[in-house]
Amino acid sequence: MKPARGGRPKAVVLLSGGLDSATALAIARSRGHEPYALSVAYGQRHAAELAAAGRVARALKARRHLVIDVNLEAVGGSALTDRRVGVPERPTRGIPVTYVPARNTLLLALALGWAESIGARDIYIGVNAVDYSGYPDCRPEFIRAFQRLSRLATKAGVESGRGFRIHAPLIRWSKARIIRRGARLGVDYALTVSCYQADARGRACGRCDSCRLRRAGFRAAGLPDPTRYRR
Amino acid sequence: MKPARGGRPKAVVLLSGGLDSATALAIARSRGHEPYALSVAYGQRHAAELAAAGRVARALKARRHLVIDVNLEAVGGSALTDRRVGVPERPTRGIPVTYVPARNTLLLALALGWAESIGARDIYIGVNAVDYSGYPDCRPEFIRAFQRLSRLATKAGVESGRGFRIHAPLIRWSKARIIRRGARLGVDYALTVSCYQADARGRACGRCDSCRLRRAGFRAAGLPDPTRYRR
Repeated sequence: MKPARGGRPKAVVLLSGGLDSATALAIARSRGHEPYALSVAYGQRHAAELAAAGRVARALKARRHLVIDVNLEAVGGSALTDRRVGVPERPTRGIPVTYVPARNTLLLALALGWAESIGARDIYIGVNAVDYSGYPDCRPEFIRAFQRLSRLATKAGVESGRGFRIHAPLIRWSKARIIRRGARLGVDYALTVSCYQADARGRACGRCDSCRLRRAGFRAAGLPDPTRYRR
Repeated sequence: MKPARGGRPKAVVLLSGGLDSATALAIARSRGHEPYALSVAYGQRHAAELAAAGRVARALKARRHLVIDVNLEAVGGSALTDRRVGVPERPTRGIPVTYVPARNTLLLALALGWAESIGARDIYIGVNAVDYSGYPDCRPEFIRAFQRLSRLATKAGVESGRGFRIHAPLIRWSKARIIRRGARLGVDYALTVSCYQADARGRACGRCDSCRLRRAGFRAAGLPDPTRYRR
C-alpha cells in the first residue's frame, strides 16, 4: 500500500455504530489506514446507533468523524425510516420491510464524495452477505459494480484511470468470525448498538432480526455478549 | 411503454431549477410519464435554483416535488459547496473547481431510492456531455454504469432481474438544441436559474461558466434570452 505523504493512507470508513461497521473500522486501522469515519443520519429509527458511532469513532481513534444528515423520511418505503411500518419481530421470507431503498448506494456515494475531497482512495463498508437480512446491496456483485462506477464518477477516477477501492472485509464472514476478529483487534462491542429499535439509551429489544443475528453471533463465537437488553 | 395501473408510468425527474433539468422534466412528460420531481438541497451556493425548481415543478405539473436536504458543506472540495473557494469567472482547463465530488452519483442514488419507494422504474437526469463543464459524471459511460448498478442495488432490480432506466435525453445535445426543444414543449425559461452565483432573487451574474453556456445557447438557438442579469 502506498503511504500518504507524511503518514498512513487515508480511508473513509462508513460507521453506523453497529457491530459490523465498528469491526470494519478496526480492520481499516489494522491494515495501516488512517480512518475517517462517516456516519449518515438518514432519519432511521435507530438513532441510538449514531450516538454509538461517536463512541466507537473515539475509542478506535478515527482521525475525524463526520455526520451527514439526509432526510429520507420523505422518501419512505422502509420500516427503518417510516414510523408507520412496523419492524418485524420474527423471521420473514425474502427481502424484509427493514430494507431501505438504495441505502448502500447512497452511503457509498457520500463516502465517495468525501474520500475524493480529502484525497483518500479507500472506502470501507461493513456489509455482510452471510448472516445478513437478504438485502440486495450487501452482495459482492453490488460492491464490485460500485467500485467500477467510482472510476467513471469522479475527477480522481478519470484523471488516474483507476477507481476507488471499496473494501468490504466482512462480506463473506459469519457473525461469529466478525466478532472474534473485532475482539482480537480491541473493539469494545459494549459501545455498539445493532438493534433496529433500540431505545434512547441504546438498549436493544432482543427480538428484531438484527438483535437475533447479533446474539447468535456472540454465542457462536464463544464470547460473552455485552449487549444491554431492555427486557 | 407499459402504462402504470390507472395512468401514466411514474418517473422520478432530478430537478435543479436550471435550464437543463427543466427541459428534462418537459421531455419526461412529453414521453407519457407522470413526473415526480426531486430536488436535492446540498448546501450549494446557488440556492436560488431551488426556488426556481419549485416554480418549474408547478408550471410543468409534476405530480409531486420532493426536496431532500443533504449537508455537503462539511464534505467540502468544491466551489459550489465551500464558500472559501471562489467561482471562476473565466474558462479554466480540465475539470473546474465547481465540480462537486461524486455529485451525480449522490443525486442518482437518492432518485433511485425514491423511484423504488414509489414504484417508478424510470429516472430522468438533465446531464449534458457537449456544452458542459468537463464533469466526469455527465458522460454516457457514467450513466450506463449507474444503470447497471441500479439492478444490483435494489430489491426491485433483483426481484425483476432488470435495472431502472436512467434517461439522460440531453446528454448529446447542444445547449441550443436543448433550448429549442424545451421552448417547443412549453418550458418557460424565465422561471429557471442556471447561474452558479445567482443572488437571492435569482438574478444571474452573467460571468460564470454556467451563465456563459446559457447565454450562448439562447443566441445559437435564435431565441430571446429571458434570463435576469444583475449587471
